[in-house]
Amino acid sequence: MNTSKRVVLFGRAAPRLYINEVAVRDGFQSEAGFVPTEDKIRLVNRLSRTGLAKIEVTSFVSPKAIPNLRDAEQVMRGIDRQPGVRYVALVPNERGSERALACGADEINLVMSIGESHNLANMRMTCEQSLAQFRRVMQVVRGSGMRVNGTVATAFGCPFDGDQPVCRLLWAVEQYLEMGMDSITLADTTGMAHPRQVSEVSRAFLDTFRGVEMTLHFHDTRGMGLANVIAGVAEGVAHFDASLGGIGGCPYAPGATGNICTEDLVHMLLSCGFETGVDLDALIDVAREMPAIVGHPVPGHVLQAGKRTELHARPVAA
Amino acid sequence: MNTSKRVVLFGRAAPRLYINEVAVRDGFQSEAGFVPTEDKIRLVNRLSRTGLAKIEVTSFVSPKAIPNLRDAEQVMRGIDRQPGVRYVALVPNERGSERALACGADEINLVMSIGESHNLANMRMTCEQSLAQFRRVMQVVRGSGMRVNGTVATAFGCPFDGDQPVCRLLWAVEQYLEMGMDSITLADTTGMAHPRQVSEVSRAFLDTFRGVEMTLHFHDTRGMGLANVIAGVAEGVAHFDASLGGIGGCPYAPGATGNICTEDLVHMLLSCGFETGVDLDALIDVAREMPAIVGHPVPGHVLQAGKRTELHARPVAA
Repeated sequence: MNTSKRVVLFGRAAPRLYINEVAVRDGFQSEAGFVPTEDKIRLVNRLSRTGLAKIEVTSFVSPKAIPNLRDAEQVMRGIDRQPGVRYVALVPNERGSERALACGADEINLVMSIGESHNLANMRMTCEQSLAQFRRVMQVVRGSGMRVNGTVATAFGCPFDGDQPVCRLLWAVEQYLEMGMDSITLADTTGMAHPRQVSEVSRAFLDTFRGVEMTLHFHDTRGMGLANVIAGVAEGVAHFDASLGGIGGCPYAPGATGNICTEDLVHMLLSCGFETGVDLDALIDVAREMPAIVGHPVPGHVLQAGKRTELHARPVAA
Repeated sequence: MNTSKRVVLFGRAAPRLYINEVAVRDGFQSEAGFVPTEDKIRLVNRLSRTGLAKIEVTSFVSPKAIPNLRDAEQVMRGIDRQPGVRYVALVPNERGSERALACGADEINLVMSIGESHNLANMRMTCEQSLAQFRRVMQVVRGSGMRVNGTVATAFGCPFDGDQPVCRLLWAVEQYLEMGMDSITLADTTGMAHPRQVSEVSRAFLDTFRGVEMTLHFHDTRGMGLANVIAGVAEGVAHFDASLGGIGGCPYAPGATGNICTEDLVHMLLSCGFETGVDLDALIDVAREMPAIVGHPVPGHVLQAGKRTELHARPVAA
């Protein structure tokens, strides 16, 4: 199909998009069963060769809080690093950042929910307490060369407190950047984002913080996940989190279901003609492992239906 | 959230959107079990009071071809008609149009796939044969006051022949309009449409056939269903088909899965601030019946997760 010059939907789209994989951390943390360390390492190694920009490998949290990621050191130390891929660990505090530093993570991810009630439920801290802790973490990692990404969780609504004002979201980002964080993720933790909101929030962010790397992290809880990506791409957002097979869901958020599915996301972006650097066939091949690894079917669509370009044999005429 | 004046994503959006329900025809026709006639009638009657624009009630096909719709006359005659709602029947031929006329359908829907292979598989006719049959149907209904909608199936790609040129789609629409059809549906029969394509096709249609009522009909086969709606809305398309609970799928199309889900669609459009005339709570209430009616879970998201505005009680502080 010819691309009409007058198409405006993607008029502001970035020339290149970047896909971050979160299944190994965000996905596995909420699985009922423990995913064996060797499966995690093999999965990261296979994902490393598909052209993804970032892989969130694990979380340096207390093993009591998230037993499924109790092998954080083993996984982070056991993987083969591909040049050009950023290997990220989520950390909740100074201790976590020290563990991430010791393992040579390329980047740590710090998370605060701007919904106070969700931050209390998820982090057991007020937002002010989270920000104070982030400042202490920044002291720990200063000068190490390890990047710091700050995630604004419940950015598109809190399941307890409802919609959050855009100015509160921008305030949180400003705090993050002032303390020296390198990049920002706006996370729709419980799948409340809708396309008009994504459009408005993305525009506000990109206008306010020009040149700052910003990632959108969506869940498909209410079916709007990929629609929200389109709204973000249309505004010029270039980085997107997704989870292989669409697994995941915040354990502390009622009704939260899986992240948007990486192979469905890449399939859509590729169909739309966007450059992501990801080898879709290689990615789908890795995704085929997911049901066996987690021990249940996964919600991804393309895994089941095949790519839109996979044509079927014509039926024999009756 | 304030609506910024500079938001362009929905810059061309129509002031009012219209939602058409297809579950009773497109959904039930592919169910393994027969849905009792009284369930169909009760469902249509309940749907009639939710603010939907159109309801596709049944199909006047041979009972041998689609046994699940063998009660077409009983359903069309048994429902209570609400003023302002259009009650539609799909018809394949002159005989079907005579049956629709006899039951006083407000509108008939004629379907041809522009993918020749799919039309042969689905209709057992070439496109030329389909068009010739449509002309005979137009003779039958002329002067009756019954509206005729023409559906271009596989408009966004044929599962056997692949992508169809936009000019072929526009050619089919031109044929439909020249023989006197009142409105057009572009159907993504097997879920191959992607947002950029929807944007381009919608723009081409709206530029070429100004003032013609055009409906987009999407399936969520590859997870892009609601993203495609956003692309259509952004271009100014005002009419969308959807299926309660997300049930459905063409029995003659390999890998085809359900239609986009009506309550998920209305939830997204309402969240985005669009006027659809549909009472979302009433619609969700009807959708709750679907799993029991079809005897299996349905894929709709909002039915499971609740509306984004349904907040949860704050957890008690630890």
